[in-house]
Amino acid sequence: MRRVPSSLIASALAPDPSSAEPLHKQLYERLREHILSRRLAPGLQLPSTRVLASDLVISRTPILHAIEQLKAEGYLEACIGSGTYVARFLPEQRMVATQAVALTGGSQSGGHRQPGFEARRVVPHKIRTIPRAAYRPFQSGFPALDEFPFVTWSKLLQHLQTRANSTLLGYGSPVGYLPLRRAIASYLTIARGMRCDEDQVIVVSGAQQAFGLAVRALAEPGDSVLLEDPGYFGAQTAFDASSVKLLPVPIDQDGLIVPDMHEGARARILYTTPANQFPLGVTMSVARRRQLLNWAHKSGVWILEDDYDGEFRYSGCPLPSLQSLDFTGSVIYVGTFSKVLFPGLRLGYIVVPAHLVEVFVAAKRSFDYHCPMIEQFVTAEFINDGHFARHIRRMRTLYLERLEALLEAARAEMNCEFEIRRPDAGMHVVARLGQGVDDQAVATDAAHLGISTIPLSSCYLGPDRISGLVLGFAGYKPQQIRSAMQKLSTVIAAHSCARRA
Amino acid sequence: MRRVPSSLIASALAPDPSSAEPLHKQLYERLREHILSRRLAPGLQLPSTRVLASDLVISRTPILHAIEQLKAEGYLEACIGSGTYVARFLPEQRMVATQAVALTGGSQSGGHRQPGFEARRVVPHKIRTIPRAAYRPFQSGFPALDEFPFVTWSKLLQHLQTRANSTLLGYGSPVGYLPLRRAIASYLTIARGMRCDEDQVIVVSGAQQAFGLAVRALAEPGDSVLLEDPGYFGAQTAFDASSVKLLPVPIDQDGLIVPDMHEGARARILYTTPANQFPLGVTMSVARRRQLLNWAHKSGVWILEDDYDGEFRYSGCPLPSLQSLDFTGSVIYVGTFSKVLFPGLRLGYIVVPAHLVEVFVAAKRSFDYHCPMIEQFVTAEFINDGHFARHIRRMRTLYLERLEALLEAARAEMNCEFEIRRPDAGMHVVARLGQGVDDQAVATDAAHLGISTIPLSSCYLGPDRISGLVLGFAGYKPQQIRSAMQKLSTVIAAHSCARRA
Repeated sequence: MRRVPSSLIASALAPDPSSAEPLHKQLYERLREHILSRRLAPGLQLPSTRVLASDLVISRTPILHAIEQLKAEGYLEACIGSGTYVARFLPEQRMVATQAVALTGGSQSGGHRQPGFEARRVVPHKIRTIPRAAYRPFQSGFPALDEFPFVTWSKLLQHLQTRANSTLLGYGSPVGYLPLRRAIASYLTIARGMRCDEDQVIVVSGAQQAFGLAVRALAEPGDSVLLEDPGYFGAQTAFDASSVKLLPVPIDQDGLIVPDMHEGARARILYTTPANQFPLGVTMSVARRRQLLNWAHKSGVWILEDDYDGEFRYSGCPLPSLQSLDFTGSVIYVGTFSKVLFPGLRLGYIVVPAHLVEVFVAAKRSFDYHCPMIEQFVTAEFINDGHFARHIRRMRTLYLERLEALLEAARAEMNCEFEIRRPDAGMHVVARLGQGVDDQAVATDAAHLGISTIPLSSCYLGPDRISGLVLGFAGYKPQQIRSAMQKLSTVIAAHSCARRA
Repeated sequence: MRRVPSSLIASALAPDPSSAEPLHKQLYERLREHILSRRLAPGLQLPSTRVLASDLVISRTPILHAIEQLKAEGYLEACIGSGTYVARFLPEQRMVATQAVALTGGSQSGGHRQPGFEARRVVPHKIRTIPRAAYRPFQSGFPALDEFPFVTWSKLLQHLQTRANSTLLGYGSPVGYLPLRRAIASYLTIARGMRCDEDQVIVVSGAQQAFGLAVRALAEPGDSVLLEDPGYFGAQTAFDASSVKLLPVPIDQDGLIVPDMHEGARARILYTTPANQFPLGVTMSVARRRQLLNWAHKSGVWILEDDYDGEFRYSGCPLPSLQSLDFTGSVIYVGTFSKVLFPGLRLGYIVVPAHLVEVFVAAKRSFDYHCPMIEQFVTAEFINDGHFARHIRRMRTLYLERLEALLEAARAEMNCEFEIRRPDAGMHVVARLGQGVDDQAVATDAAHLGISTIPLSSCYLGPDRISGLVLGFAGYKPQQIRSAMQKLSTVIAAHSCARRA
């Protein structure tokens, strides 16, 4: 027999002292309401009237009255010598309808939902959902989690024990924890050749938040945002859910094709991944970078530069970021710790022109006040103690090995129809499938064999789509990569044959 | 003499292999651009041509060419036997204008900003900024940070060391970490008498994020949100920045005055703090709760119930939350760990009707993917190990003592004109000032004495404002409270006298 603490029942029945209705009537209605809603479930034993009276700080008389009436109506049952129970078979059969009735005070006429009610309550706009990323080949976006020096991280967490103070536990600044912003600015200046100081750095909850922040700070609902097409689904989702219009921008071998001035006049923001275009892996040429900056300057469009995995470059000279080439204050630079540390950390940063700091900080404040302090403390120490640079160097070598393993495994399976261009940077490759092969169907079949891929066609906004698969390699051991590639090539071969047949 | 690592200079100069322009011309332009922009500062020594050639993986010839030309034009200077330097006096005097010129490839005509450029770049909407909360009497919102069992928290952090896995480090689910959602649901059911299961609980980055999420999930830009007036500035900021209209709802002694159906027809969401109205401290009566739910049901408006400090109730029977009285799926319940644990954690939760889970999760995903995993792990363990309930019980006793200290200190200073009603719950009181006393001026003067207060008039949206001060007491020791109250009463007395004079 289920029992519920008497204090809980008392709190659910608490009469309203200011009400004109007599106590016994109020108690009767509350009890009936909770029985009808099954909050007090059939078969549940009520506390004794003495206990209820004490919990509610009222006399027993109104409680006895209410219970008698509910027994008479069949809502409660008495078992002699063992107390009062909620009836197993309630007088009402129309349970669902009467839940609403109970609320409107028992009037039968108000019980049914008004016409138009459901329509008003319909969720006004659909937000795109993305399936959860599983940590298995070839899910992209995952770094080598098993290679992360978590023991070091834990030691830094332990050091905090003696340093608990109001800076660590209290409200922080929306702009971010100053030592972390300093560490980021100095890392970006030294390692990435950027031109920024700590005052321009704002700590955010990963790159995903940066996209929404940029819209809140720089655009208004109904404004347009230009995006690389194909492009990063996370950015597409963020912009889409922020009530701005999405305008696709095509890509060629030099990066995104700079829009004409007419398109610039329609848009507020242009989103781009110049270091390693997601998903195609194109590095934007320097000439294109200058052309883009020139266009942004003239058209008044803000550039949102997402440098999500620029740390991992395997060949050639690293090109300067758009931010470092920009002398007009047009570029907002977005970086993330999800790839170089670990995704569960949910920390990233943006570097904004000095005159935009205030509005971005206000936007961050309106979003979620600020990022968690413990995470910011530990990340700052991890960078300042040199673990960060060391980890990146180690991972660059490791990821290059894993890239080679993937390319080799792909070559070994050359009998099936796909083509992988060796990328210059990053943590994923694109396998192009033969024309007419349905990449979504391949991805679905691969998933059944325990292999995650992103169909290239799903990354497009526009109608012209290339069939292919986005394959992440950084997170997986060569052995896992080889075994997954074998299975994947079987699936691709089956689909390519089916197409030819 | 400043020196810059040669690799940095090389990366800034990196020529574009795909460009039709000869190498020496490209190098010349990059160098000139960086000199004009002061990225290569006057007096800076350049690396030797040999080092540059090696860093850029090109021959020395084009480098020598470029440098000779820049010397000839006066951008660089040679000191015999000690290398090449950026000239201290550049040929251009019009430095600001030429920064833009450099970008457009040196054409003088394109150098000046187009008319209308600045206008387009103006930040489109102002986001309200709120001064940062300092941890000192009587700043509201702070729990007793020095009483938080951080040693226990640190031990739980340490336990993670052996448990590093892809769940902790990788991407998590936008809905939140399941064991934490379970712990929250069970806490809410047992301790707060709520009706919910874990599937309805979504973990968010504090209550602040919950407000924005509700707008993204349930409203569209231009829709209206009804808010208690006076009300919580954090919610006002979140709604305002989300591009919805704010409609004030007045308060009486029973809580917010339920709007008429006409107003309901104009709004999407109604925001309320029924357990302890912020800032006035009114507890919404049960009759008013029923009336509000009935209205919400009929008008189709969603209720956003912010239960920010309902854990700390000092007298009377706790009233059931709106969520627990609602049988129509109209209530979104918001809770936070900022008050019962610590603000720097940035964790909170929302409980939504089952049919809204999907859209809220998609909204959370679009905002920032999910909350940090380590924080969620430790919070779940802290609750499940019983530390959470223990800490709340301890704090309830402590805060009551601190409330008494504040009331006593206020009585001791009764010679000055202010009136504090004893609150039934929460972590702050409101001190009403005499009519005509300017609470903003009092707050400013108090701040000069190291005392933080929120002027009551600043919490209003509408024009009818009561003069008063919001005083937080939970975070401060009785001795601090007494000393701050003495200083504050001096300030208030001065302003009251000034008014009478």
